[in-house]
Amino acid sequence: MTSRPIITLTTDFGVADHFVGAIKGVILSINPDVELVDLCHEISSHDILGGAFTLAESCRYFPPGAIHLVVVDPGVGSARRPILASSATARFVAPDNGVLSLALEHAPEGPPAGPATPAAEVRHINEERYFRKPVSNTFHGRDIFAPVAAWLATGVAPQQFGPPITDYARLTLPKPERRVGKGVSVVRGTVIRIDRFGNVMTNFTPFDLPELFGERARSFRMAVNGYEITRLVGSFSEARPSEVVILVGSSDYLEMAANRDSAARILGAKPGTVVEVTIEW
Amino acid sequence: MTSRPIITLTTDFGVADHFVGAIKGVILSINPDVELVDLCHEISSHDILGGAFTLAESCRYFPPGAIHLVVVDPGVGSARRPILASSATARFVAPDNGVLSLALEHAPEGPPAGPATPAAEVRHINEERYFRKPVSNTFHGRDIFAPVAAWLATGVAPQQFGPPITDYARLTLPKPERRVGKGVSVVRGTVIRIDRFGNVMTNFTPFDLPELFGERARSFRMAVNGYEITRLVGSFSEARPSEVVILVGSSDYLEMAANRDSAARILGAKPGTVVEVTIEW
Amino acid sequence: MTSRPIITLTTDFGVADHFVGAIKGVILSINPDVELVDLCHEISSHDILGGAFTLAESCRYFPPGAIHLVVVDPGVGSARRPILASSATARFVAPDNGVLSLALEHAPEGPPAGPATPAAEVRHINEERYFRKPVSNTFHGRDIFAPVAAWLATGVAPQQFGPPITDYARLTLPKPERRVGKGVSVVRGTVIRIDRFGNVMTNFTPFDLPELFGERARSFRMAVNGYEITRLVGSFSEARPSEVVILVGSSDYLEMAANRDSAARILGAKPGTVVEVTIEW
Repeated sequence: MTSRPIITLTTDFGVADHFVGAIKGVILSINPDVELVDLCHEISSHDILGGAFTLAESCRYFPPGAIHLVVVDPGVGSARRPILASSATARFVAPDNGVLSLALEHAPEGPPAGPATPAAEVRHINEERYFRKPVSNTFHGRDIFAPVAAWLATGVAPQQFGPPITDYARLTLPKPERRVGKGVSVVRGTVIRIDRFGNVMTNFTPFDLPELFGERARSFRMAVNGYEITRLVGSFSEARPSEVVILVGSSDYLEMAANRDSAARILGAKPGTVVEVTIEW
Repeated sequence: MTSRPIITLTTDFGVADHFVGAIKGVILSINPDVELVDLCHEISSHDILGGAFTLAESCRYFPPGAIHLVVVDPGVGSARRPILASSATARFVAPDNGVLSLALEHAPEGPPAGPATPAAEVRHINEERYFRKPVSNTFHGRDIFAPVAAWLATGVAPQQFGPPITDYARLTLPKPERRVGKGVSVVRGTVIRIDRFGNVMTNFTPFDLPELFGERARSFRMAVNGYEITRLVGSFSEARPSEVVILVGSSDYLEMAANRDSAARILGAKPGTVVEVTIEW
Repeated sequence: MTSRPIITLTTDFGVADHFVGAIKGVILSINPDVELVDLCHEISSHDILGGAFTLAESCRYFPPGAIHLVVVDPGVGSARRPILASSATARFVAPDNGVLSLALEHAPEGPPAGPATPAAEVRHINEERYFRKPVSNTFHGRDIFAPVAAWLATGVAPQQFGPPITDYARLTLPKPERRVGKGVSVVRGTVIRIDRFGNVMTNFTPFDLPELFGERARSFRMAVNGYEITRLVGSFSEARPSEVVILVGSSDYLEMAANRDSAARILGAKPGTVVEVTIEW
């Protein structure tokens, strides 16, 4: 048995309307042998950064050749372009609004692609013969992105869909900033995400706070909304009930977490909340 | 590779209980080669019209031969019949409560079926040998609809499931009403649906309001809950932030929408809210 | 066409984060021919009993050989073991916290397995060569459970994953207690679940209350939060609007239900609420 082509779906359509069903129908009408995989339809409405994060943290685990269809598209009907991006290991069909930025940044999993991994090739999708007609002004997911992904899965080469471009939209996660004083470093970051369990993901990676790790780790305090957290642990279960601790999460960012409780609720944290780490010596 | 038979699922079961999982298990036990496609499980409890709309706006995009299983079934356990409907391009298994009405009304996509598209053939499913035993009184989705859909996908002909009927339940969307006065027309319609983004779908199509379209379009005002909207645009992005505008949505109904905001919240609109369009000349 | 191996997914990850997508990617990277089936991702966070119930009431309908992946894992990162359970008809990959208890208890559907159905064989998964590396401390769903399920689907035998164990965690539903007095029996039970429709599932089965059934059924009263219910019916539709009645639900437990209304709301019932049945003679 030959494996079927995979198309994953990431949208902000929710699951209470007909939008996701319509997209699936359009894809299966063009290529009934596609394996459809729901990644996430609960991206917050128009939340491009949220979509970018969820996509990047899912798509990196898929087998080479998977096609990732992304419809988080507040600019539908405007001049924003539809794009097709091909990386060493995956292909993406999405609006040109930055939603692919984090996925294209990530090193793919699996065997190393060689000394010089080619960067993604991005194309402006403008070959209308691959669109569903008529193209509505409000539902390009159904009329442009879904049919293009389905034709791609059927074997149409990326260059058939339109010309390469380099001026596509990019967005970046904010980076922590470090101020060094007399005997003290203060690193200022931000909350980027709250997950289902109330874990508070920050934009700190271990590389931003090397003093906290290794054999000679220093003490520190992390301040959020007037709370101070000083304990870095290896897993949720090391925290006492409702104690808020810090750990390196499964996406390699530092997270504040409470054992079987919501750190976000305890701390009143949400995306954008300032987080300040102070290290004295 | 031969394409596998498709069974789509539309229910009001939500996704937090075991109901959907049980249905999938029953289907795959009868026919493990079926391609299961989740359309929507968040139809509001017992909302037959909502289910009818979501089904119709999804199923029309599926390839010919797809089987659509619909379980929005407030009358489960009563005398309402299970039915199997076959149209030119699709087959449906559902309770006889009107939930198929809009799907059977819609012209299918694709090449025209000829001058006289045959209407759907509807059958009363009463051949108990295709049911799961014992049949519960509260979960016909698992015990009747799922196994019938699975046997249908396995190649059992529709006539094997029961006799044809013509007195099946039908429901219709309310139609706008027009009053013509001296130099003025007033067309009264209603809100039929609010989507995830807060777009307010009315029961007006462009055919109900021809004066608003074309080269010699007239000015008009659409009144909802004391608000007046006077601007018809082509896409969401033409609206100023939080301005409410009108556009023809992707399902061909007129919608009130706000650019990256919820028109439903701004207008206080919900299904059933009266919408009145006044056109003077 | 040979049927593809089935892996079902039951988690408390919700559908708004990247967790489910990451798990699907890991599985499909190891075995792209797996049929992934979403059972339920809305188990309440860390609700082991809820996960156990939903799994048991879904997995029993699947074809023999299906693999059920369960990630409701409040102890992730602690010493709790990952386990692999093989019953006569299904295989399970899950944390060792009791979440499989009800699934392993259930008699499978289908032809009887013979006079002595072998009990499940449970193994401690400790062969790290089947894990994704590095193994995080917070996301064993991605790093241990998903790859083990995928390798199992690929044909690796259960004994390859680790040694058999017998001291795995078990949990049981609370059982009703009966007190017999002079001319009266009082049976005390509890609410175990509220479903999407507001039906209130108790831990009473017909075997716990034989007096209520059969040709010589006795009258009774069921008391909940000060309400008394005295009518046992066959289906929802026999209840008058908003009347609360009792019926045997599709999972064979007694449920309190209201016709097109929420019995849970009317009664103020929730999991753990005491239910007392009084039978006089």
